[in-house]
This record gives sequence, structure tokens and C-alpha cells, in this order.
Amino acid sequence: MDLQFYLRDKRKIIKEALDRLLPPSGATAPTVHESMRYSIFAGGKRLRPILCIATLEAMGKDSSPYLPAACALELMHTYSLIHDDLPAMDDDDLRRGKPTNHKVFGEAVAILAGDALLTLSFELIASMDVAPEAVRVELVRLLARAGGTEGLVGGQALDLSSEGKDVIAETLDLIHARKTAALIEASALFGAVLGAASPEEKGSLSRYGHSLGMAFQITDDLLDAVGAQEKTGKRVRHDQAARKATYPGLHGVEESRRIAKEYVETAVAALESFGGAAWVLREIARGLIDRER
Amino acid sequence: MDLQFYLRDKRKIIKEALDRLLPPSGATAPTVHESMRYSIFAGGKRLRPILCIATLEAMGKDSSPYLPAACALELMHTYSLIHDDLPAMDDDDLRRGKPTNHKVFGEAVAILAGDALLTLSFELIASMDVAPEAVRVELVRLLARAGGTEGLVGGQALDLSSEGKDVIAETLDLIHARKTAALIEASALFGAVLGAASPEEKGSLSRYGHSLGMAFQITDDLLDAVGAQEKTGKRVRHDQAARKATYPGLHGVEESRRIAKEYVETAVAALESFGGAAWVLREIARGLIDRER
Repeated sequence: MDLQFYLRDKRKIIKEALDRLLPPSGATAPTVHESMRYSIFAGGKRLRPILCIATLEAMGKDSSPYLPAACALELMHTYSLIHDDLPAMDDDDLRRGKPTNHKVFGEAVAILAGDALLTLSFELIASMDVAPEAVRVELVRLLARAGGTEGLVGGQALDLSSEGKDVIAETLDLIHARKTAALIEASALFGAVLGAASPEEKGSLSRYGHSLGMAFQITDDLLDAVGAQEKTGKRVRHDQAARKATYPGLHGVEESRRIAKEYVETAVAALESFGGAAWVLREIARGLIDRER
Repeated sequence: MDLQFYLRDKRKIIKEALDRLLPPSGATAPTVHESMRYSIFAGGKRLRPILCIATLEAMGKDSSPYLPAACALELMHTYSLIHDDLPAMDDDDLRRGKPTNHKVFGEAVAILAGDALLTLSFELIASMDVAPEAVRVELVRLLARAGGTEGLVGGQALDLSSEGKDVIAETLDLIHARKTAALIEASALFGAVLGAASPEEKGSLSRYGHSLGMAFQITDDLLDAVGAQEKTGKRVRHDQAARKATYPGLHGVEESRRIAKEYVETAVAALESFGGAAWVLREIARGLIDRER
């Protein structure tokens, strides 16, 4: 099968699941529900849920019963984007080519929609009766760690406190590891835990996820430095304007491309024991090299 | 034993547990960790963890192994206070007699500290190995529901969208039920689930928690209307200034006192089957009648 066809197919399935799992717009907290839906359906790549699904498939498991867990990853990701875009944070007006959540719904509702998505991500996992309780507990723990001060929150805090400062390579790696790689690694580990992976398989998938996450963020930095706004839907060179440290800013464009490629190779190498069934995970990693958005 | 002695004792135990369970100030995300600790140790009454503990005791169970679950309730409560106080929300400078979190740490860190507390509350439960996985899953679900758009978030959203409007009694009851009673009810249910309560006991404790929560919020409204700043540590008549609907504003002071008392009586009646072991739960409810802070 062709990767683009696969991704389109899964995006459709994930979108339908998200639509079922999110509270309806017309319900008892109308504005917050609308605001949650606005950002969830603003057209993301669904990378994190797809990684969870593709990891399960790499282990020969059926992913369809576990869509709520895959969707929980997207909720966690989307909450972090809504809060990161706030005026007090990165102050972004545009996300995926559309006005950011607070531009449409106001700051108060945007904060609450983020809070609600974060909270619902845990409820979706806890309520996934098809998985044993021990699995659900492990997923809650993984998601909370990826979201907390060693993950998304810690990465954003370090990013903000580093703005306008000379950042060393180790600090930038820590920001990227927490802000991006932690949740991407958790996404692969979600598949591993749901698929009852062995400790060795978990180790491999953790390595895959971390390396993929780092490669993803470095190519994101590269797109921001050299990409075109039409392709990314974000204001280009925004990082530079905000005086944020980036890979090309710190290592140069060519060296950044080399490091990204190295991470991709590490990611692909980690999949060796999974054989042909891991083709999607492999292709996703390789696709980052020529990433355009 | 005397209730005040009991509460002081439990507050000390909860404070020590919170200190152990929160990430240290000097660790890898220093400012966010400090900001989390600032609000957690700003001197709350610890009503929610105490309710969890006292409910376990009412069922003749030892509460000490379950302190992380009790603390998770306090983290959820504190996150909601930090976010509610933000300029985009209620714009409060003072909380428990001290500057609010964003006044000390800035808005960005306050938002992140709230996010981190919310996230950590779920991690604490998931990591509580002393409880069976099925119990942990049930607690995650209870906490997420009490925090989501049918609970804290939904209550705050409705509160904000009602500001400056003529609010009918049903709407005010819904705000109070979500913003206050939902998490207080969850606190009693935490004890019920941890103590392996029967469905009948759960029903009673749910009724107790909801009625206690409503009584608590109505007496809070009364304090805001007629109390003195020295006693509450908040700016008095702030609700009125913000044109927020309150019980005394809608029902008058005397009628509000009568309704609060009715809720207290319902709460106490719900405890009948627990006998003398539920004395703390009973005294806490009765104490609301003469509440001064």
C-alpha cells in the first residue's frame, strides 16, 4: 500500500472517532465545546494517533478497538497548541492557516477549552473498557508524564524562559525532547502497551518514538527557517522574530539536515525486529527528510 | 475527638504528603515547580483531601496508603483556582490573603503551573500502586468528570458567560453544582471507591458530597456578601463588583441561609447508615452553618 493512501484512510477514521468522542457543540457547555471542536478539527496531520495505530499494526494487532486511546493523544497535543498560542505565551494569531483558538473564542474560552481537552484525554483512556485496567493505568501514567513538567509543560516553560537568550545545544535538545519528542514517544508506547509488547519491543519503540520526535522537530525548525508560508500555514520566520533558539539558528541549515537524517536512521534501525509489518512507521520516519509541511 | 484538632492533624499530614508528591523547586523546571508549590502551599483548608480521608474512616478503613489520591483532589482544585484567577478569567489579585499566582510568576507560568497540576493529579492516581488497577481507573474517571465540561471547566465557562446578565435560579444552581459541588462530591466518592463501598453506600456518599458542596458554595456567597476581608482573605463584595450572580443576590440573605441549612440537613441525613464513624463528615457539614472563612 501507498503511505499517502494509508495516512488519508487513517485520518478519516481518526476524525470520525474524534467526532464521536468529543462532546457535541449544542450541549450544556456550548461555547467551550465549540472551541474544543474548532481546534481539534482545524486540520492537523494526526501524527500521534496514527503512530499509536501503526505501532499496534506493526505488532500484528487490530487497532480499531483502541481508537479512544489514539484520540486521547490528539487531545493532549491540541490542548498544548491552544495554550502555547495564547498571548501570554507565544502570542500566535495563525495556526494551520486559520486564526488561533483565542482569536476566535477569546482568551478565557481558549484556556478553558485547553483545560477541557487535557482533562478529557484522561477520561477517554479511563473509560476504554475494551482494554484491561492495568493497561489503562499504564496509559494514563505515560500520557501524564509526556504532558507534565518533564514533557510538554516543562518544554514550553524552558522555551519561554530561553527566549531572547543565547541557548546552548544541550538546552535546545532538552526543549525539543520535552516539547515534541516526549508525546511522540508516548504515542508509539501507547501502541506498545495496548499491543502487550515485550520489554525489548517497548525499548525499541521508545527509541523509535524519541528519534522520530527529534527529527520531526528539527525538520519543523528547518521549515520555519526556509519554508514558505503557503506550505506550513504558519507565519514563517516567526521563531526568528520571537528570538527563539532553533536548530538551523544554532547548527546551521546543512548540519541540521544532517542531524535530522541521523535521527531518522536511528528511528528506522530501531524497528528492525518488527520486519515488514512496521512499514508505515518506517515510511513516516523516512518521509521527514523531504518534509514540506 | 474535637473537629478542629482532627482538621489540624489531617492538614499537617496532607501538607507533608503534598510536599513529598510535588516536584522539588530546584529541579529541572524550576519556575513552574515553584509556581505550583506557591499555590499549593498558600494555605488552603484542604477540604477535598480531608473529605476523601474522612469518608474512608467513616467506612472503618485506613486512609494513610491512599494519600496520593487525596492529594490529587487538592491539585485539581488548586489548578482551577490558578486558572480562574487569570486576567482573562476573573482577574483576581488576591487569594487566601496572598497575591495570586500570575501576580507573582506572570501569566505564562501561571497557566503552565495550572496545566502541570492538572496533569500531575492524574499521574498521582495512576502511580498509586497500593490500590488495585480497577480502583485507579475508576478514580481517574471520577476526577476527569468532576474537572471537565460537566464539572469545573463547564461551571467556570457558564459563570463567565453569565456575568453581567440576569441569571435565573436554575442557572446559578448549575454553576454552583459544577464549579463547586462536582469536585466535593468526587472527593467523598474517592473515599467510597478506595474503601470498596457498596452501591448503596456510594449513593449515600454521593448525596452527602453534592449537598455539602452546594451548602459550601452558598455559604461562600454569603461570606462574600456579608463577610469581612480579614476573615476570608479575599476582596469582599468582589462578586458584586464583577456582576456575578450569587445566592444572596438572587434569593436574599435569609433565604440563602435557609437553603444552605437545608442542604446541610440533607448531607447529614445521607450519612445515617454509617453511624458514629461518620462523625467528621457530619461535623464538617454542620460547621458550614457558622462558617466564617
